[in-house]
Amino acid sequence: MEAQSTLQVFVNGDFVPAQQAFLHISDLAIQRGYGVFDFFKADKHKPLFLNDYLERFYNSASLMYLPVPYTKDELRQILQKLISLNNLEESGVKMILTGGYSENGFDPAAPNLIIQQQPLVLPSKEKVKKGISIITHEYLRDLPIVKSINYTTGIRLLHHMREQNAEEVLYFNSGIITEFPRCNFFIVTEDNTLVTPAHNILKGITRKNVMALAAKKYKVVERDITLQEVKQAKETFLTSTTKRILPIVKIDGEVIGTGKPGPITLELLQDLMALEQEVLAETVR
Amino acid sequence: MEAQSTLQVFVNGDFVPAQQAFLHISDLAIQRGYGVFDFFKADKHKPLFLNDYLERFYNSASLMYLPVPYTKDELRQILQKLISLNNLEESGVKMILTGGYSENGFDPAAPNLIIQQQPLVLPSKEKVKKGISIITHEYLRDLPIVKSINYTTGIRLLHHMREQNAEEVLYFNSGIITEFPRCNFFIVTEDNTLVTPAHNILKGITRKNVMALAAKKYKVVERDITLQEVKQAKETFLTSTTKRILPIVKIDGEVIGTGKPGPITLELLQDLMALEQEVLAETVR
Repeated sequence: MEAQSTLQVFVNGDFVPAQQAFLHISDLAIQRGYGVFDFFKADKHKPLFLNDYLERFYNSASLMYLPVPYTKDELRQILQKLISLNNLEESGVKMILTGGYSENGFDPAAPNLIIQQQPLVLPSKEKVKKGISIITHEYLRDLPIVKSINYTTGIRLLHHMREQNAEEVLYFNSGIITEFPRCNFFIVTEDNTLVTPAHNILKGITRKNVMALAAKKYKVVERDITLQEVKQAKETFLTSTTKRILPIVKIDGEVIGTGKPGPITLELLQDLMALEQEVLAETVR
Repeated sequence: MEAQSTLQVFVNGDFVPAQQAFLHISDLAIQRGYGVFDFFKADKHKPLFLNDYLERFYNSASLMYLPVPYTKDELRQILQKLISLNNLEESGVKMILTGGYSENGFDPAAPNLIIQQQPLVLPSKEKVKKGISIITHEYLRDLPIVKSINYTTGIRLLHHMREQNAEEVLYFNSGIITEFPRCNFFIVTEDNTLVTPAHNILKGITRKNVMALAAKKYKVVERDITLQEVKQAKETFLTSTTKRILPIVKIDGEVIGTGKPGPITLELLQDLMALEQEVLAETVR
């Protein structure tokens, strides 16, 4: 708690204490929910898989016609400075690019860039050991390939989710599974093939890493998955930057597989943690 | 311009100069585009059709699980005070209720309420006389009955719209017309019936007033309208709080009717302006 009160935030060129990080109400995120963001992990002073996250951030911005006010190299330097100022052990770094201070409350202006860093809260070992319950909901995000700030549906469903004692909500569209508001989805089929949705999703960096790791040992396929198929899967799990791999043991009240985290799921989690350590060891700062 | 620099804004209980109206970056509108709003006109010190707008604002807030921190009567008093402080001739008043200062950047907290007032810019007489060109786009808003701040698609389409020399973009879903990002839609059919979409729309207050006015002289029907039917209409127009009634003369490059604003459209605009004057005259302040 002590540490958090002195954290620095980057706002449009300045490093300011988090308590003093404000945007004027004419910002298009406040007026019209218009903006993009991205989020990566840093271990001590080293960002993990930063190239991939920057690539996606610039791509989201471009698809929303929001020019990032810095080159990738300049942004890297800003990120490195923020991370060194805050000096956290394990953290999450969030970059938000909004539609800017709009004169008429609708037309975008020069984008505002905010970069926040916070201590990372990983899922507990207990949670990984037990697995989680999820529910499903029919919904398709506006522009799935863009990491926009629009979470209207995801946040509105929090009430419904908690009423059902679920930890996440999995979206589907016309019977085909897509993604979670903030995570990707995988199943392990009867013949030990890893399958993950191919269309109408945000392509997660952890999803990409897990696919590469899994491909060393198993068959990995990107394709449509039906809601029905999910409930017959041997194992299911989600992937995300903060959650890494989290086993799913119940969907819409139905037990998946044995009702316990599956061996392939747990094996891939070990592989992912090993990969992170490997990448961290590569460059000693 | 002089007047604008001294305008007051209401932010969470305080009246502050517009230049000093800020939200902390932890607000859920900035983090996740989560919030609702509403917008009404005021003529001198008198809000127009305020009951209807307040009703809709509280309804949107409730459907997004955002408690409005004031009763309707308290909010009325705040609005009246703001309007009297700013002392504008003709203005638009916007109330924004956000998901509040979220601790984890995802869960809603106590909502933040902002109320802004600005001089109103009505469409020019020239524009009403000539009518406007629009384009169409397939899209369905997340929660059409909620006036949420999510305009990701509407704003992203501005580029496309301007490339086509269009002034607005009309959404349709599976071949059925719904609404504009900020306006409702009407057609006049061959037998002088007024038709307006029935489903998957935000029910505009101006739409409601125009339906009531039209019903005094013509048949008025709420029902599905196909994209095809629109292009064969005798007249088409849009309705909105700021634009009142604006004739549409071209859709996706195809001329509608005679290519000029239709007589029923212009007659209804006169009726609407007369209604506004009537309501203003009712209570002399």
